[in-house]
Amino acid sequence: MNERQIIEYIAAQADPTDGQLLKGIGDDCAVIRKDGNRVWLLTMDTLIESVHFNRDFHPPEKLGRKAVSVNVSDIGAMGGKPVFVLLSAGMPHGFDEAWFRAFVSGLTEACREYGCFIIGGDTVASPGGLTFTLTVIGEAEADQVVYRSGARPDDAIWVSGPLGLAAAGLELLNAGIEPDNQAFDLLREKHLNPQARVSLGQQLAASGRVHAMMDLSDGLATDLAHLCKQSGVGARLFARDLPGVAMLADAARLTGCDPERWALSGGEDFELLFTANPDESFHLGGIAEACGLSIFPVGVIVVGVGVTLIRSAADGTNHEIAIAYQGFDHFRNGNGG
Amino acid sequence: MNERQIIEYIAAQADPTDGQLLKGIGDDCAVIRKDGNRVWLLTMDTLIESVHFNRDFHPPEKLGRKAVSVNVSDIGAMGGKPVFVLLSAGMPHGFDEAWFRAFVSGLTEACREYGCFIIGGDTVASPGGLTFTLTVIGEAEADQVVYRSGARPDDAIWVSGPLGLAAAGLELLNAGIEPDNQAFDLLREKHLNPQARVSLGQQLAASGRVHAMMDLSDGLATDLAHLCKQSGVGARLFARDLPGVAMLADAARLTGCDPERWALSGGEDFELLFTANPDESFHLGGIAEACGLSIFPVGVIVVGVGVTLIRSAADGTNHEIAIAYQGFDHFRNGNGG
Repeated sequence: MNERQIIEYIAAQADPTDGQLLKGIGDDCAVIRKDGNRVWLLTMDTLIESVHFNRDFHPPEKLGRKAVSVNVSDIGAMGGKPVFVLLSAGMPHGFDEAWFRAFVSGLTEACREYGCFIIGGDTVASPGGLTFTLTVIGEAEADQVVYRSGARPDDAIWVSGPLGLAAAGLELLNAGIEPDNQAFDLLREKHLNPQARVSLGQQLAASGRVHAMMDLSDGLATDLAHLCKQSGVGARLFARDLPGVAMLADAARLTGCDPERWALSGGEDFELLFTANPDESFHLGGIAEACGLSIFPVGVIVVGVGVTLIRSAADGTNHEIAIAYQGFDHFRNGNGG
Repeated sequence: MNERQIIEYIAAQADPTDGQLLKGIGDDCAVIRKDGNRVWLLTMDTLIESVHFNRDFHPPEKLGRKAVSVNVSDIGAMGGKPVFVLLSAGMPHGFDEAWFRAFVSGLTEACREYGCFIIGGDTVASPGGLTFTLTVIGEAEADQVVYRSGARPDDAIWVSGPLGLAAAGLELLNAGIEPDNQAFDLLREKHLNPQARVSLGQQLAASGRVHAMMDLSDGLATDLAHLCKQSGVGARLFARDLPGVAMLADAARLTGCDPERWALSGGEDFELLFTANPDESFHLGGIAEACGLSIFPVGVIVVGVGVTLIRSAADGTNHEIAIAYQGFDHFRNGNGG
């Protein structure tokens, strides 16, 4: 079973039948009723040692921050505001207390920055290594929540930042390549301490102009395929428009990797992926600019299924490649996101 | 740091300041506002392979059921009804798919029985072994929620069933002792497939007669100490009243263990621990009987701090022993609950 099959198997058993549930399995968050027009958004993400992080090069403060960011990213991607956090911390006997205090310090600092705080959880012994699971609860207006399922044919597709940087940074860290190079610092920081686009997500949702949105955690090829499946549409991406590929060139050369592959299949970008009428470009760009960010058009939603990458050859011809679900999969890939 | 110090350290950093939060760290569940007089209860528990379960003798269906029971037990212990479940499943590469399907089947079956269902979660690779974290969301009337903090001097203390059975069952399983003995089946089943007292908890809470309540997960000595600390009181337990000790005698003899220690310090009983005016005995017993259960008085709340065990010697004299926090601690004990 791959990751998608596992989730589909669980979803098929789950059998949801409650009027207080607005959205169950299949989006960034589950959505349950709060009061009047307000809802609670619920998301859960786990970080496991030697899978999601390597203690040799991941400072504990940054890991604590990341544990929060990867979760609040899901809240922001539906237009919500993070409010509460539950933390389950699994640690080996005789764990390093200074390390743990620094981890908690980074975690609570990030909570404050995103406007949420810890209200409960669990602590357990974990002889197989450190494991941290967070549940984050966010709040939103019910009629402003943006789901994965709203994309429409002829929508433009945007991302909120360059792609593949976190994957490149992880590769540099794994390879032990640490030259004095500011561009590489940026790549490494995207893996070690990603920033979630929570304010941007809230403002895009509040604008009422975005049809579908999610965060990029498993790579564009997989995440866009999820969005298309939920929306009952297909997508065409243009290789020349993938933002950030030029920033990856040096790291790719040094590590022998393919920058386009990082951009399409590298996990953990935690940028927003969203669709809207192409006419909204100026307005949505203005919203991003007010958040200190840029948005980049990468393709178009079409009638159909799947995700196709369009690559223009030197002779002017276009090549089309099916890339749906070519991103990170815990049970197919060996390591990473 | 022991388990309590870890939680206190996190709580000190957490800095809760939100008007929508009725209760944060320090009770069975966090309590957040829903609408009018309704609240959502949130709890999170993790089961880790070789700490909480041994795949050699824990059938996957029963483990799936237990993952739900240990969580909904916290909801019931505050008087709530479980509604929604988030599941984070960490599994090694090449995990046993038949095992996993059986686990999910037990989990969803237990969800149906307790009246809740899965609405989201996460799946990750976990090379160190299986790890499952559930967050359960329950619902309650705000003015019916029973906290740990309401115990009053002269309250009687009850538990909803015999104590130490799960610890004895685990010891028998670990020792490989499997004689054809129905009493032992009962002990083993208490470890493998405990039942959460959710209906009883809801009805005790709805009666308005219970001052403080929690579930027994780390053993009476530790859990009662938590309840006393939250309530600003002390407690006296009577050794002769501990229910279930006689049921443990054979298992204790075979394994060389102390039955009273199992009853006081064995984890994972998942019975309810609650306090009320001693005059309520008849009424509360009737509520339990309607649920097919019995309640057992084990002691009394007193002015002061700590938990004292009163043991009557053969000569009629009483011996008092301080036992607060002598229950299971993940970071002090080697293995178990």
